[in-house]
Amino acid sequence: MALVNEHFLQLPSDYLFADIAAKVNAYRVVHPKADIISLGIGDVTQPLCPAAVEAMHRAADEMGTAEGFHGYGPEQGYEFLRRAIQQGDFLSRGIHLDLDEIFVNDGAKSDTAGIQELLRWDNIIGVTDPVYPVYIDSNVMAGRAGTYRGGRWSDIVYLPCTAEGGFVPQPDGRVDVVYLCYPNNPTGAVITRQQLRQWVNFALRNDVLILYDAAYEAYIQNADIPHSIYEIRGARRCAIEFHSFSKTAGFTGLRCGYTIVPKDLTISTRDGRRTSLQPLWHRRQCTKFNGTSYVTQRAAEAIYSPEGRQQVRQTIAYYMDNARRMLAALRGLGFECYGGADAPYIWMRVPGGKSSWQFFEELLYGAGVVCTPGVGFGPSGEGYVRLTAFGTRENTDEALLRIARWSSSQ
Amino acid sequence: MALVNEHFLQLPSDYLFADIAAKVNAYRVVHPKADIISLGIGDVTQPLCPAAVEAMHRAADEMGTAEGFHGYGPEQGYEFLRRAIQQGDFLSRGIHLDLDEIFVNDGAKSDTAGIQELLRWDNIIGVTDPVYPVYIDSNVMAGRAGTYRGGRWSDIVYLPCTAEGGFVPQPDGRVDVVYLCYPNNPTGAVITRQQLRQWVNFALRNDVLILYDAAYEAYIQNADIPHSIYEIRGARRCAIEFHSFSKTAGFTGLRCGYTIVPKDLTISTRDGRRTSLQPLWHRRQCTKFNGTSYVTQRAAEAIYSPEGRQQVRQTIAYYMDNARRMLAALRGLGFECYGGADAPYIWMRVPGGKSSWQFFEELLYGAGVVCTPGVGFGPSGEGYVRLTAFGTRENTDEALLRIARWSSSQ
Repeated sequence: MALVNEHFLQLPSDYLFADIAAKVNAYRVVHPKADIISLGIGDVTQPLCPAAVEAMHRAADEMGTAEGFHGYGPEQGYEFLRRAIQQGDFLSRGIHLDLDEIFVNDGAKSDTAGIQELLRWDNIIGVTDPVYPVYIDSNVMAGRAGTYRGGRWSDIVYLPCTAEGGFVPQPDGRVDVVYLCYPNNPTGAVITRQQLRQWVNFALRNDVLILYDAAYEAYIQNADIPHSIYEIRGARRCAIEFHSFSKTAGFTGLRCGYTIVPKDLTISTRDGRRTSLQPLWHRRQCTKFNGTSYVTQRAAEAIYSPEGRQQVRQTIAYYMDNARRMLAALRGLGFECYGGADAPYIWMRVPGGKSSWQFFEELLYGAGVVCTPGVGFGPSGEGYVRLTAFGTRENTDEALLRIARWSSSQ
Repeated sequence: MALVNEHFLQLPSDYLFADIAAKVNAYRVVHPKADIISLGIGDVTQPLCPAAVEAMHRAADEMGTAEGFHGYGPEQGYEFLRRAIQQGDFLSRGIHLDLDEIFVNDGAKSDTAGIQELLRWDNIIGVTDPVYPVYIDSNVMAGRAGTYRGGRWSDIVYLPCTAEGGFVPQPDGRVDVVYLCYPNNPTGAVITRQQLRQWVNFALRNDVLILYDAAYEAYIQNADIPHSIYEIRGARRCAIEFHSFSKTAGFTGLRCGYTIVPKDLTISTRDGRRTSLQPLWHRRQCTKFNGTSYVTQRAAEAIYSPEGRQQVRQTIAYYMDNARRMLAALRGLGFECYGGADAPYIWMRVPGGKSSWQFFEELLYGAGVVCTPGVGFGPSGEGYVRLTAFGTRENTDEALLRIARWSSSQ
């Protein structure tokens, strides 16, 4: 008799963005003609850069010829792309990676969710609070989370991120494995070199594995903020890092990212032997993944060309200009805002002690603008909302105007 | 202290196709000028059909414009593709599926490996022997396989597939979950409607979950052979089915397939309640996957157009013509061959009681032709080799000539 993995049944059936969609739909029923602007979901809006589009055309043509056809590629990605990553994202910052430490994937979500397969079921998982839900839910499915009560899992260690602490958590001796994401989704906060060094030193001392999500590193404007955890000495021995072309180059619809598993990263067996994670991840990928599209990989390669680089920078500048306008306007209205300087997210304190969901509804009904309630990202997100800078300029400006009008009528 | 999932450490480090590559490389060292033909790995060689290439060009152009840009798509795939699948692969065979029973993925490997996440760790897994290694290895990683000795895992039930039984196993009361793949990789065997009905009835009686891999269904020539397990009454209540565009339409480098999880498929909790797998797989995909490339999905949609359908049929006819030539030539030389009639694989008995690996080396050194040793697919594969019909016509004919020359010199 086949039996279900009952950990799946413990997942609360509601899902943040589904809840938001339901509430937006309810609003539409009452206001069928309302023109709603979403500053909620973190998806990009600007077209793919010409260099990537041209690369896809070339690759599509290749695939239609006997000589240029590409069948199964290497599970860890084509060398042309891994070499571009090695040079463009690491060597240029003084970080030396071997090609086989770079695993190209179909987006960071797959690997941030899949990486926990390499870990025993009873590791204690630490997450920042608020947090990107995938880190937790993938561990729930694997049975590491315990039971869910009052918005928290009993066996997950929540590391509160507060305005006072700059939304960077303190190292916590209870965890075996910790997810860190900087620039942060949802708070838009960054981690300084010194704070990251503290985490790396803590991890080395306590044999903690850091899962470092750098999906938003391309948005960093301040030259002092680290783009990669491997800028910190010793990180190769305690950290796996996740990157994504989704936000860097608008690949949310193309599906490509990469994961770094350094060869000197080892963890422990139960009887105290050390084992290297790089060959295990290689085996995992060879067994459960067949590479990402050749056409997509050619598009990703193209963003490392001089033109591609230039075009991608322009798009990021466009979004960051949105962020600047949002910060200026919202602060001008008296809102307390964080993030938005080195990240496409603004984390805004809800005024007047209201809840995230209360403010969400007021903003929707008062201004026709959708935000993301902070509590959806974890208990410490209560009293905040997330706004994204990924809208078009027109929508962003219009949303700010509406918020100003609504705010002044309060 | 972070601890490793030690099930990974139990996997034998050698991997069939890596072993083959190593032996081929050893041969090349001795014969640097040798022109080796591989009839080994199951990758296609013919270019993508024009309909798919044109669809990719159109999609790439769309992605480069503000109006046509597509960001995150639905995790379960775009409705345009799911509708094409629903109509083209099922309704046309009298099978009614709801759109939300169809989950588009990045290839069948991801889902045949990932589906076991929905199952408790202590289900008894049955596999055919020989077998596609991913079914076993993904269960090893999850701790369901026990220990490995003498080419077998202690907790896996191997269902021997022999020439006498037409390479279709008998239902076996020990299993909770069983993987079936027809047309079969590696034997090229098919399952009759009656045999499949026996399996479905057995599964319904014993509450067994069937994981049915139909990746090669497009190669079926005989009108009596089922293309989908859902052609059998009751299969909706006991089977998940996997499809792939890799072999149907040469998408090995583009990455697209789909999985069917019917809504009336339920399995048991430990305390005897029934739970439906469809919402669990939906949740799993939303958490661990972000959809496959929009460009790829448009290419997949195009193969359901009248031109696409016609072009894909031509390519399949090309490969099946290879298979016919191979069967005729090899049987003419006195080899005992199976498969190749409704599948792109030929399963050949090694003459003279030699082992699979012995014959592999003799064929490589004697004829410069690479095959796949059957024992690499499981203990019952010993004494067989797999040959694929996915080569070009020229290579296939040349390989047959060389085998004939070598064979007559024996």
